[in-house]
Amino acid sequence: MVAVFPDAEYQARTTRAQAQMAKHELAAMLLTSEADVRYYTGYLTRFWESPSRPWFLIVPASGTPVAVIPSIGAALMGQTWIDDIRTWPAPQPGDDGVSLLADTLRDLAPDGQIGLPHRMESHLRMPLDDYNALRTALPTHTFGTDHGITADLRQVKSEAEIDKIARACDIAANAFADVPRIATVGTPLSQVFRDFQRLGLQHGADWVPYLSGGADQSGYGDVISPASDTPLRDGDVLMLDTGLVHDGYFCDYDRNWAVGHATDAAARGQSQLMEAAAAGLEAAKPGATASDVYHSMHGVVGGGDAGRLGHGLGMQLTEGLSLIADDHTVLREGMVITLEPSAMTVGNHLMVHEENIVIRAGGAQILTPWSPSTLTVI
Amino acid sequence: MVAVFPDAEYQARTTRAQAQMAKHELAAMLLTSEADVRYYTGYLTRFWESPSRPWFLIVPASGTPVAVIPSIGAALMGQTWIDDIRTWPAPQPGDDGVSLLADTLRDLAPDGQIGLPHRMESHLRMPLDDYNALRTALPTHTFGTDHGITADLRQVKSEAEIDKIARACDIAANAFADVPRIATVGTPLSQVFRDFQRLGLQHGADWVPYLSGGADQSGYGDVISPASDTPLRDGDVLMLDTGLVHDGYFCDYDRNWAVGHATDAAARGQSQLMEAAAAGLEAAKPGATASDVYHSMHGVVGGGDAGRLGHGLGMQLTEGLSLIADDHTVLREGMVITLEPSAMTVGNHLMVHEENIVIRAGGAQILTPWSPSTLTVI
Repeated sequence: MVAVFPDAEYQARTTRAQAQMAKHELAAMLLTSEADVRYYTGYLTRFWESPSRPWFLIVPASGTPVAVIPSIGAALMGQTWIDDIRTWPAPQPGDDGVSLLADTLRDLAPDGQIGLPHRMESHLRMPLDDYNALRTALPTHTFGTDHGITADLRQVKSEAEIDKIARACDIAANAFADVPRIATVGTPLSQVFRDFQRLGLQHGADWVPYLSGGADQSGYGDVISPASDTPLRDGDVLMLDTGLVHDGYFCDYDRNWAVGHATDAAARGQSQLMEAAAAGLEAAKPGATASDVYHSMHGVVGGGDAGRLGHGLGMQLTEGLSLIADDHTVLREGMVITLEPSAMTVGNHLMVHEENIVIRAGGAQILTPWSPSTLTVI
Repeated sequence: MVAVFPDAEYQARTTRAQAQMAKHELAAMLLTSEADVRYYTGYLTRFWESPSRPWFLIVPASGTPVAVIPSIGAALMGQTWIDDIRTWPAPQPGDDGVSLLADTLRDLAPDGQIGLPHRMESHLRMPLDDYNALRTALPTHTFGTDHGITADLRQVKSEAEIDKIARACDIAANAFADVPRIATVGTPLSQVFRDFQRLGLQHGADWVPYLSGGADQSGYGDVISPASDTPLRDGDVLMLDTGLVHDGYFCDYDRNWAVGHATDAAARGQSQLMEAAAAGLEAAKPGATASDVYHSMHGVVGGGDAGRLGHGLGMQLTEGLSLIADDHTVLREGMVITLEPSAMTVGNHLMVHEENIVIRAGGAQILTPWSPSTLTVI
């Protein structure tokens, strides 16, 4: 495996984190989730799909992070810039890496405050029994919040990261362009889902972790259900929303098509959504808040069941800020976000549209091929 | 969406859990992970890929489970047998469902012990800040282990679940059979990975959450790395290991092929692996332990870097027991496990083989098309 980025990128991330750790007087940070571990190491594998083994990364107050991981991961971690890799033969009942982790923390930070992600979107990817055992093993350390250091750093992408997201967007664009070849009146939605994922892979996705969508008359009732076998009908709006991955980075956007013909309600919906997206694009400038961008779109389309009108993305399908009234995160250059307005069409049916953009000094740069205001008919 | 199973299946699971809860004097169980929530509800969506929103299911001491979930999931959860669904507009900074969850727990269990998964393989899928706030909001409740109730129940599959896993195995078998069409001397491994996932979808997989593999002379050095662009060479062994999903259930098995020709070392490896798998199959009877099955295979091939020679599977790629010396879980009818021996071939190269079986009264039933003892040459 060739690392996704040069070592200097991971070194720079670590240095930035350590500057924040010093401010907050953290002796070390303990990270357990896929994206957080990968952020500082470049350790990229689909093996996280298995819940059986915990993985640990310690970011010390200074120096290179230390990996405390199952032995099955030693060879791959050895190809990253991390050189202190301590392993145990997981899964190991009774002591699944806990004493090794405790010893390593003691080595790196003889006492003091250990910071772990505590805020929204985070979770501790280790058994609670083991977390309790770790705390018991280190009675003179305190375990508390990481003050959002890693989550905050991850919100602003480097040019190298933006390139990866842009490439994922391009791959999805090619797949979306082929949808008229796989979907027509009579095609079961479940078949469209399978074939769209195949298109994503054909055009270069490494994998397709996320696909949702819907199809119904002039909109759809729900955007998170698995695909049914119901065939597409004339007058349906078909929506496909994908998070496909290139070198560990996601795109996350959708497209709508009119099946057979565009109903008036669907045509109006698309037009409204694109007007809202344009308003969001205009508002998405450095110094504006997530709330500002939300209001710019909400003013056009109102809210939706989704509860938010966009979000950050990167190593995860969704990460960082939410475009909601109550998120006052200030947009900074390099943040990559989605604009995701939704609009009610007829009855309880809605349409959702999504584009991906990066915040630049002069205004937002579009990463997706911006959609037209009229629906493509298939 | 039609539910994957009839309501009676979820009802029966709940009743069994509540019998165990009574023994352990649990007032309620609180579940937060995809598989645990789905086990009692049938709630199936790929939306868990987004880490932004927590989801909660409460199993009370008696009666139907109660869902406390983001409003975006209300429509889909409403199609399951769960009728008490309480929602909040997540993500909601400041109180992301915590007070609603606390109120609901208070309704269902005015005091007493709340059980959460604490053991190996489990994690709490909610922010630690929110977990701490929940405990503060319910000072007269105690929060502790669920005694492994859900994990233990999930190990033994119903016939309906076994049918789903068997179908996933069949889909993968058809994809594996087509590999000679997509892989030959000169094909980059990354291309083989993409095309294999396309084959899985073509043959009916809903999605392909997991694919790993390797290719090198007479074996491979590592089984969890992303695919490189290195072309297949004569004398390579190509291995593909997939966890693809049908109706929310995984298969998890691999196949090896000799590229161009089978080297003596590779041929010997395959023969050893199939001998080990046969020994595991023979040992995998009700009443035997995971350790017994491990030793039956280890006696033939020795250990490997993987640390275990198989594991349970079902709603997750890996779940439940591990085939290691120290796992003394007793095999019961209805458990679905993998047999996954590995053998060193030349230098630091190894080969890994995997089959899926279900434990039956008379002995194990094979769910995968058992491999021949000689490598297929492509």
